[in-house]
Amino acid sequence: MEGASMKHEMNIWVVGGDMRQAKLAELLSDDGHTVHTYALERGPELYGVLSEETLEGAALADCVVLPLPVEGEGSLLNAPLSAGRHPLAEIFNAFRPGQVLCAGRISQSSATLAAERGLMLRDYFQREELAVANAVPTAEGALQIALEELPVTLHGARVLVIGYGRVGKVTAQRFAALGAKVSVAARKFADLAWAEAMGYGVEQTGALVGWLCGYDLVVNTVPARVLSEKELRDLKPGCLVIDLASKPGGVDFEAATRLGVRAIWALSLPGKVAPVSAGRAIKNTIYNMLSELGV
Amino acid sequence: MEGASMKHEMNIWVVGGDMRQAKLAELLSDDGHTVHTYALERGPELYGVLSEETLEGAALADCVVLPLPVEGEGSLLNAPLSAGRHPLAEIFNAFRPGQVLCAGRISQSSATLAAERGLMLRDYFQREELAVANAVPTAEGALQIALEELPVTLHGARVLVIGYGRVGKVTAQRFAALGAKVSVAARKFADLAWAEAMGYGVEQTGALVGWLCGYDLVVNTVPARVLSEKELRDLKPGCLVIDLASKPGGVDFEAATRLGVRAIWALSLPGKVAPVSAGRAIKNTIYNMLSELGV
Amino acid sequence: MEGASMKHEMNIWVVGGDMRQAKLAELLSDDGHTVHTYALERGPELYGVLSEETLEGAALADCVVLPLPVEGEGSLLNAPLSAGRHPLAEIFNAFRPGQVLCAGRISQSSATLAAERGLMLRDYFQREELAVANAVPTAEGALQIALEELPVTLHGARVLVIGYGRVGKVTAQRFAALGAKVSVAARKFADLAWAEAMGYGVEQTGALVGWLCGYDLVVNTVPARVLSEKELRDLKPGCLVIDLASKPGGVDFEAATRLGVRAIWALSLPGKVAPVSAGRAIKNTIYNMLSELGV
Amino acid sequence: MEGASMKHEMNIWVVGGDMRQAKLAELLSDDGHTVHTYALERGPELYGVLSEETLEGAALADCVVLPLPVEGEGSLLNAPLSAGRHPLAEIFNAFRPGQVLCAGRISQSSATLAAERGLMLRDYFQREELAVANAVPTAEGALQIALEELPVTLHGARVLVIGYGRVGKVTAQRFAALGAKVSVAARKFADLAWAEAMGYGVEQTGALVGWLCGYDLVVNTVPARVLSEKELRDLKPGCLVIDLASKPGGVDFEAATRLGVRAIWALSLPGKVAPVSAGRAIKNTIYNMLSELGV
Repeated sequence: MEGASMKHEMNIWVVGGDMRQAKLAELLSDDGHTVHTYALERGPELYGVLSEETLEGAALADCVVLPLPVEGEGSLLNAPLSAGRHPLAEIFNAFRPGQVLCAGRISQSSATLAAERGLMLRDYFQREELAVANAVPTAEGALQIALEELPVTLHGARVLVIGYGRVGKVTAQRFAALGAKVSVAARKFADLAWAEAMGYGVEQTGALVGWLCGYDLVVNTVPARVLSEKELRDLKPGCLVIDLASKPGGVDFEAATRLGVRAIWALSLPGKVAPVSAGRAIKNTIYNMLSELGV
Repeated sequence: MEGASMKHEMNIWVVGGDMRQAKLAELLSDDGHTVHTYALERGPELYGVLSEETLEGAALADCVVLPLPVEGEGSLLNAPLSAGRHPLAEIFNAFRPGQVLCAGRISQSSATLAAERGLMLRDYFQREELAVANAVPTAEGALQIALEELPVTLHGARVLVIGYGRVGKVTAQRFAALGAKVSVAARKFADLAWAEAMGYGVEQTGALVGWLCGYDLVVNTVPARVLSEKELRDLKPGCLVIDLASKPGGVDFEAATRLGVRAIWALSLPGKVAPVSAGRAIKNTIYNMLSELGV
Repeated sequence: MEGASMKHEMNIWVVGGDMRQAKLAELLSDDGHTVHTYALERGPELYGVLSEETLEGAALADCVVLPLPVEGEGSLLNAPLSAGRHPLAEIFNAFRPGQVLCAGRISQSSATLAAERGLMLRDYFQREELAVANAVPTAEGALQIALEELPVTLHGARVLVIGYGRVGKVTAQRFAALGAKVSVAARKFADLAWAEAMGYGVEQTGALVGWLCGYDLVVNTVPARVLSEKELRDLKPGCLVIDLASKPGGVDFEAATRLGVRAIWALSLPGKVAPVSAGRAIKNTIYNMLSELGV
Repeated sequence: MEGASMKHEMNIWVVGGDMRQAKLAELLSDDGHTVHTYALERGPELYGVLSEETLEGAALADCVVLPLPVEGEGSLLNAPLSAGRHPLAEIFNAFRPGQVLCAGRISQSSATLAAERGLMLRDYFQREELAVANAVPTAEGALQIALEELPVTLHGARVLVIGYGRVGKVTAQRFAALGAKVSVAARKFADLAWAEAMGYGVEQTGALVGWLCGYDLVVNTVPARVLSEKELRDLKPGCLVIDLASKPGGVDFEAATRLGVRAIWALSLPGKVAPVSAGRAIKNTIYNMLSELGV
């Protein structure tokens, strides 16, 4: 088990969210906590979990878990598995001052709503351990796309991973584990030394033109324009590009279309490819947060 | 480069087949041979390859490559990328006595046709090196299905691979490389010792009931009924079954449907998931065969 | 647990042998059997094991374990951890007709002695699962020698493994796992295809001259003269040669000395580098043998 | 090739040091530079390198490479491969103001000497890319000790790596690659998440007592007393401890002796186990430094 573990039984409400929050509720119940859900009524049936029609009693919870991102359009709670509209202001009215709320990607307006009510709102998406845990399903999502799209086996394929942060590290490792010949492009000497220590070839991120024509697949993880038209022109025909970088992404997709380069922008992979694992990662992170808060 | 390499330029005809044969034609041309194709006219444009409308001149070829399997329905050449109907007997009439023909899964009738004409018809699908090479795209196909279907990451997933032949060995290795906790079920003590030496858990193929409830995924590679109703009942809810075994397969699919077990029978994966790699494997095998024949 | 497991408590005698048999006695006792030892009195103290001064009572054993090899010089029991001389004939007199004896590398004379007395003498060293299990400590022994001798890291080192049988397979895999660039030399196309499927470079065993100058390390596993003077001349200065092949070995050591090539003949590594693991492998094998015999 | 590469030929002096500096001189010469050595005269013969008897001409060098550490006892140059005594002050007198000197572990006194003479003295040992590169031979050194000392194979051995910095990461990865069951102990949630993402078990560094009895090997990388008497008491008999941490180390060695725990303090492994690789890592680092300085 990763990180902190919760020794005592808690009363937890999971309010809104998608399959990750639904699975999270079930996993919390499996750990022995009393779990209530609200605004998840159209999701799957959850074993051992109490589905509530109102927020009555939520103010007694040891912890409330809110979605990732917490806010949908129009200052509503992000609740794709609910039939109702749930203004965030109303949701927040249901809690007691000082109560611990864990949410993902807290928006300015939700932070203000929480502050006005004296709620202790904390962001689990900013935790490094969650970002690390999410790198695994992200890398597996990239593998899946590559397996679906490439006419060659990953074994023996030449793969360039641009960027050597969390996602870059795990992605490079997974492709190499399947027998791909992996190179990593980075800027910092220390990152290049790490890539060497792991057995990858190395390239300089700022100087890719002239070195791209050998790759069957380029996976970008850097949220900055590293694959502009001149880099895309340098790719060999049939080379696949997968962009894992959050907005604004790293690929000039217009140029890619013009040049006939297949480029796929794959965002938010953890919730899509492995909702149960993504829910478990959020659970572990919330345990860590509660442990630090002394809950 | 694997196996034998061809030092001299040859004249090769590729007659019929699917994307694998098409890509094979292109790869042969890349190696410097003169390559003619016939009955592949609806396939992709092939760089450097001569697309022929008749078999005139085919009798001069150093080697003729026929499809896998060689025979389609009704004693016709297996030619899904051709608009025409090509009776095998007519095709074989175009060749000269003693000419070398390499085909896959040679049927009894095509063997007879070849013998009547004095053709030297050889089966590349019976070659062990091709079977080994095909284990890689087969394992990658299994990975792809698992990534698409499972709600958990392969990292940390509990996977049972039944059978430890060619496909079982490569499949176990690939799942383990992605962080799955892999067990192997086999019958022979030596196979179990190999699985241990590779770091896998082990089970007895004939005594699986009672030991199946921990797995998220079961991949069968044994072409015999190893997962009958009583084994399927023992799986945990949500466990995915992928059957890679050729007919008759290893799963009681009727029972699986009845029990609500998701079971996917995935056949002929190499040509589907990686036609270029599958074509290259056939090419290498044909080089080995020609080298042994002294061509 | 590998292979068969013994459900009932047995009475086992371990007679003679080295550290492997001593550790084996302890492991058998850990499994709940009653274990007696004889002719191991100068070995380490063994927890839970009965050290005997005579063979009285040995005829009652469910199984007697003899050394590997069973015979030392002069028709004596191989007993390096005993102060005494133990003629095999006398040892065998202590057992009852039909009694099961498991020994390693049974010599002609010991087979005859056993047959004369109606003993059921079986060779555990001929079992494939033991050979497989021993490939692991053999490969680790090769790693140890390479780490001790080479002035470069194994990470990035260029390593050629000659032969792709049991020891070749595990050795190639272990060096590659540490980041070495591994090539495998073999003769059979299927072996070369396997090496490719595992991601290694490939060479032809019979045609190495001209292709050897790039390697930092050559590990031979073939018990035939594959590295004669002309191959040794082709190595780059400083290249290390480790010969794991049993007699007659695969290296012309005289030529190596003459040419200044460092060549190390490493025999019987399992008992030397990992006696506990080697003992455990023998234990598992004996369980399998007893299971097949219905003991 | 890692990091920066030098496009033009330089004039480089390598002054003092051990086998790493000797090999570095040879590698610099292999790259096409003009290389002079001084105070390395008792080392191996270096191909293509000019061994000098005085420092005459050293003031013309584009770069001077000094040892790691630069200073030996008594304010002398650290020069174990020289017969002479070389006071640092005299050495530094031979260079010109503004000249670039690269040294390892620059002492206060040598920094002062350099400043007084207007020399541009830079420390290559403080560079992160060198620390990363050195993690590889350090981890291989730990493997070598474990292979030499343990009576079990690393395959299947239970190994705890304490600390998940540079050396911890590479060490855990190498042991796992050989089939060991690896756990990592760390303090930070993010480090524990990384260890999980790599497939290791996890422990809390500050709370090891009660969780240590399963390990065959504990490798410490944390330079703080993490294995005091109470942790050492918790180890199982025969457990090996390897301490890779620099002074003051992480093990109470006195307590270990008292308790009969085998504990090995392994320092400065890169230069000992792989001087050529260590020299190459210094070379790459110096290239990076010169590239940043515009030399």
